[in-house]
Amino acid sequence: MVNTFLNETKAYKLSEINHIIGGILNSAGEDILIKRLAPPRQADEDTLALAISEEEIANLAESKARAAVVPLGVSIENIATIEVERPRLAMMKLLHLFYTPVDAPAGVHERACVDPTATVGENVSIGANSFVGRGCVIGNNTKLLPNTYIGKFTEIGINCLIHPGVNIGDNAKIGNNVIINHGASIGADGFSFVTETPGTIETAKEQGKIEGDFSRQKIYKIPSLGSVTIGDDVEIGANACIDSGTVENTTIGRGTKIDDLVMIGHNCKIGENCLIVSQVGLSGSVIIGDRVVLAGQCGVADHNSIGADSIIMAKAGVSKSFPEKSIVIGQPAVQRKEFVKQLKAIKDAAKHSEEIKALRKEIEELKKGK
Amino acid sequence: MVNTFLNETKAYKLSEINHIIGGILNSAGEDILIKRLAPPRQADEDTLALAISEEEIANLAESKARAAVVPLGVSIENIATIEVERPRLAMMKLLHLFYTPVDAPAGVHERACVDPTATVGENVSIGANSFVGRGCVIGNNTKLLPNTYIGKFTEIGINCLIHPGVNIGDNAKIGNNVIINHGASIGADGFSFVTETPGTIETAKEQGKIEGDFSRQKIYKIPSLGSVTIGDDVEIGANACIDSGTVENTTIGRGTKIDDLVMIGHNCKIGENCLIVSQVGLSGSVIIGDRVVLAGQCGVADHNSIGADSIIMAKAGVSKSFPEKSIVIGQPAVQRKEFVKQLKAIKDAAKHSEEIKALRKEIEELKKGK
Amino acid sequence: MVNTFLNETKAYKLSEINHIIGGILNSAGEDILIKRLAPPRQADEDTLALAISEEEIANLAESKARAAVVPLGVSIENIATIEVERPRLAMMKLLHLFYTPVDAPAGVHERACVDPTATVGENVSIGANSFVGRGCVIGNNTKLLPNTYIGKFTEIGINCLIHPGVNIGDNAKIGNNVIINHGASIGADGFSFVTETPGTIETAKEQGKIEGDFSRQKIYKIPSLGSVTIGDDVEIGANACIDSGTVENTTIGRGTKIDDLVMIGHNCKIGENCLIVSQVGLSGSVIIGDRVVLAGQCGVADHNSIGADSIIMAKAGVSKSFPEKSIVIGQPAVQRKEFVKQLKAIKDAAKHSEEIKALRKEIEELKKGK
Repeated sequence: MVNTFLNETKAYKLSEINHIIGGILNSAGEDILIKRLAPPRQADEDTLALAISEEEIANLAESKARAAVVPLGVSIENIATIEVERPRLAMMKLLHLFYTPVDAPAGVHERACVDPTATVGENVSIGANSFVGRGCVIGNNTKLLPNTYIGKFTEIGINCLIHPGVNIGDNAKIGNNVIINHGASIGADGFSFVTETPGTIETAKEQGKIEGDFSRQKIYKIPSLGSVTIGDDVEIGANACIDSGTVENTTIGRGTKIDDLVMIGHNCKIGENCLIVSQVGLSGSVIIGDRVVLAGQCGVADHNSIGADSIIMAKAGVSKSFPEKSIVIGQPAVQRKEFVKQLKAIKDAAKHSEEIKALRKEIEELKKGK
Repeated sequence: MVNTFLNETKAYKLSEINHIIGGILNSAGEDILIKRLAPPRQADEDTLALAISEEEIANLAESKARAAVVPLGVSIENIATIEVERPRLAMMKLLHLFYTPVDAPAGVHERACVDPTATVGENVSIGANSFVGRGCVIGNNTKLLPNTYIGKFTEIGINCLIHPGVNIGDNAKIGNNVIINHGASIGADGFSFVTETPGTIETAKEQGKIEGDFSRQKIYKIPSLGSVTIGDDVEIGANACIDSGTVENTTIGRGTKIDDLVMIGHNCKIGENCLIVSQVGLSGSVIIGDRVVLAGQCGVADHNSIGADSIIMAKAGVSKSFPEKSIVIGQPAVQRKEFVKQLKAIKDAAKHSEEIKALRKEIEELKKGK
Repeated sequence: MVNTFLNETKAYKLSEINHIIGGILNSAGEDILIKRLAPPRQADEDTLALAISEEEIANLAESKARAAVVPLGVSIENIATIEVERPRLAMMKLLHLFYTPVDAPAGVHERACVDPTATVGENVSIGANSFVGRGCVIGNNTKLLPNTYIGKFTEIGINCLIHPGVNIGDNAKIGNNVIINHGASIGADGFSFVTETPGTIETAKEQGKIEGDFSRQKIYKIPSLGSVTIGDDVEIGANACIDSGTVENTTIGRGTKIDDLVMIGHNCKIGENCLIVSQVGLSGSVIIGDRVVLAGQCGVADHNSIGADSIIMAKAGVSKSFPEKSIVIGQPAVQRKEFVKQLKAIKDAAKHSEEIKALRKEIEELKKGK
C-alpha cells in the first residue's frame, strides 16, 4: 500500500521535476501534473512511476502511469520518461520533493519539562513529556519529539531531529543536522569492570586455560566520566546504543550513518562518513577510519582499528586490526582473498578422502605387483 | 519464585480444568480446587503441578501437589493427573486461564496527549504520558500503555495492546489483536543513502577491490515516504525495530510473531504466521514467505527471498535466495545437507595430513625397493 | 574532548589520592592539587594523567601534567608519579572519586504518576513522566529517572538507579544497588507459542526435512505468568531485554553485569557475577553458572547449560551444554582446543590438493618404471 494522502497537496509539472533531478525528458509530457510517486504497478495517472530495476521497467507495460523515471537509454511506448544516469540519486531527490516531515510545532509543549538553566534556541520544538536537564543547550530549529530525555549539560546543535523515546545522558556534545531515531541511547554507562585479582579472562589469556578459584571475586564498576561526541550530519538508528567514554568521550565523526540496534562501546573513535549497518557491535576502544562500511551483524573486538575505506562484510568477527581499503570477512575475520581460499579448501577437502583412498589402492596394487 | 498472589482470586475445580484442556482425568480428584500453576517442586496443595518433561515428572515424587498435568500414558501414585496428548497445547490453555492482564483502565489518562483530530474508539485505554498524533485512528478495546508515541495518521485496529515506551511513526497501518512490546520501534527511517558517484561498496562489487579516492564523497539521505503495515494477530518483541519503506510500506503478514531486538529493514515483505526469533536482522527489501522460521541471530542480506515453510537456523548468514521448505544454516548459509558435508570435510581434513604422510612414506619405500 | 566542568568543584591533594588508591607516591609532589583526570596528552597542570598503557606512558613526555598514575616500576622525569600494582583497579577508584552522578532530586516529580497503593521508601526520586503501578514497592534511596514505567506489584530494592526510558513489567522482583540503563526492558512477554499439530520445526527435528501442508496452522500465544527476578548489585545495559518466565521467574543472579542490547529469553537462570557482553542472545530456559563470561554477539540455544567459570567467546553459536571452566568458540561452538584444530585442518586442506597431486605423479612414475 502506498501512502498517498500526505502528498495530495503537493503537485509538480513533469518539466519541473526533470529540472530538479537533472535528467533527459524525452517526450511531450512536460505538462503532466505529478502528485505522487509509486512503483509502476501501484501508479495511477497522477503518479510518477519509479522504474529503476529491470523488473519495474517491465512492469511499466501494465502501469496506469503517464510518466516514469527510467535509467539512461530506456524508452517506453506511451509513457513520458525522464532518463537519468544515476537512478538512485534521482530517486533521492524525488523523495525529498514529496517528503512530509514529522509534526513538531515550534515551542515548548506545556507537558515538557525544561530546566530553567537550559538554553533553548529559536524555533525549537520540545515535545510533550520530554525532559531537558540542567545547563543543556538546544540549538536553533532543533526538534525534540515527545518522550525524549536529555541529561544535564548536554549540548545539541542546530537543525537536529531527535525522535520520540530517545535518551541522551549527561555532558554529550551533539553537532548540527543530526538525526537520532526512536529510542536510541546516547551516553549510557560503558561496560567496564575490574576485579581485585585476575579473573577468568585474564587467566585464560595468560595460561590458555581457566584454573583456580574465582568464587570470592567481587566485580567493581568503572564509572564513565566521559560522555559522547557526535559530529554534524550524523544519523543514528532506532534503539541503537552509543556508550559513554571512560575518561574521554566516545566520538562519532561527521557524516557517519548508524543503523538500528547498533552497539558502539565506550571509548570508540568512529571516523567520518562511515556506514554502520544494523546490529553491528563495536567493543570498547575500537578505532574506525573514515568511510568504513561495517555491514550487518559484524563485530569488532576491543582495541582493534580498521583503516579508512575498508568494508567489513556482514557477520564478520574481527579480532585484529586491518589496514585501509581492506575487504574483511569470516569468523575469525580475514581479508576476503584469504576467506575465498578457506571456502575452496573446505570444498576441496570433501574430495580428498576419495582421492587419498584411490592413491592408497594404487599403492597397494603396486606393492602386490612387486 | 512463583508469582502466586495474582492468581489468588482465581480457583477452578480440577474437573473444570480438565474440561477446558480436553485431557483424561484419571483419578478421584475431580473436586480438588486449583488456585495456581507451578512446576512440581514449587507446588503446594492448591497448585496444579505442570509435569511435562521427564525431569518434572520425576520431581512429582517430592511434590506437595495433589494434582498434576502429565503427558499421555503417565500415571503417578497419590496424585490426581490429567493426561494430555499435546502437553504444550494444554499448558497454553492453562496459562490463559490463570493469566492476569496488565492494568489498562478504559479512558484517556489526564496526562495523555491526544490530538483533537484523532479518532478514538470505544473502551480504549490511553495511558499517562502517551502521545497520539494528528489524524490517528485507535480501534475499539485497544490499549496504549503509558509513555507510548503514535505519529500522525497512524491507524491501529481493535483489541491491540501497545506496551509502554513503544514508538510508532507516521502513517502506519496496524491490524487487529496486535501486541507490541516495550520500547519497540515501528516506522523509523529506513537506512538508505546514496553518493553522487560510486562509493567503496559499488567499487568493490564491480572490481573485487577498493581503489580510488573517496574522500570528497558526500552521503545523501534517501527519505522514507512509505511507512509500515502490520497484519492482524501479529506480535512484536521488546525493542525490536521495523523500519519504514522507501515508497511502499514495509509489511508484516497476519499472524507473524517477532521476538525482542529483531531488525526488519525498509521495504521488507514478511509473510503470514512466521516466527522471527530474537536478534534476527533482515536488510532492506527482503521477502520472506509464509510460515518461515528465522532462528536467533540469523541475518538475510538485502533483496533476497526465502520460500514458504523454510527454516533458517540460528546465526545463519543468508546471502542468496532459497526455495520453499529449505533448511538453511552456516555463513555463508547453505542448505543443511551441504553444511553437514562441510563439517565432515573439515573433520576429514584433520586426518588427511597423516594419511598423506603415510602414503608418501610408502611411495618412498616402493621407490627404494626398486 | 574531556569533560572537565563537572569536576571543577572537586580537588584532592596528590597525597590524598595516593592514600585512596594505595600506590607508591615516589616524588616530592604530594601537595600538588588535582582537579581532574585525563590521558597524558589532554592533561593540564591540574590534571592527574592516567598513563597505564605503553602508549600513554610514552605520551607523558609531551604532557603538561605535573602528576601521573603509572604501573609499578615506571618512573618519569619531572613528573610526580603514583606507581600502582593493578592499574585498572586504581583507575576504578580514581574515577569514582571524580564521578558526578546523574541529577535525581529526592521526591516524586509533579509530573510523575505514582499509584496511591504503591509503597515509596525514604529519599526516593521519581522523575517526570514516570509511572509507578498498583502495589509497587520502591526501596529507600532508589532513583527512577524520567520516563520510566514500573508495572503493577513490582518491587525494587534500595539504592537502585533506573535510567530514563526503562520499562519494567508486572510482578518483577529487583534487588538492591541495581542499575538499569536507558530503555532496557524487564519482563516483556516471553517468545513462546504452540500450534495444535506439529509445525515445521517439530517436523524437521523428527524427520530431518520439512514435509506436509502447514498452511492451516494457527499459532497460539503461551502467556507469561512468571516475571523476572534480579539479584543485588546487578547492572543491565541500555535497550537490553530480559523476558518474563512462563510459570516461574526468569532470574539474574547477584552481581551479574549485562551489557547493552543483550537478550535474555524466558525462564533463563543466570548465575552470580557473570559478565554478559553486548548483543549476546540467550534463548528460553538456558542455565548459566556463576562467573560465566559470555562475549559479544554469542548465542546459546534453548535448554542448554553452561558450567561455572566458563568463557563463551565472541560470536560463538552454542547448541549444546558445556561443563565448568570451558572455553568455547565457533559455530557450532566447540571447546577452544577443538576449534584450533578445525582452523588448522582448513589451513592444511589448502595444501592437500597439491600434495595429493604430487603423490599421484610419483605413483604414475612408479607405474611407468615397472
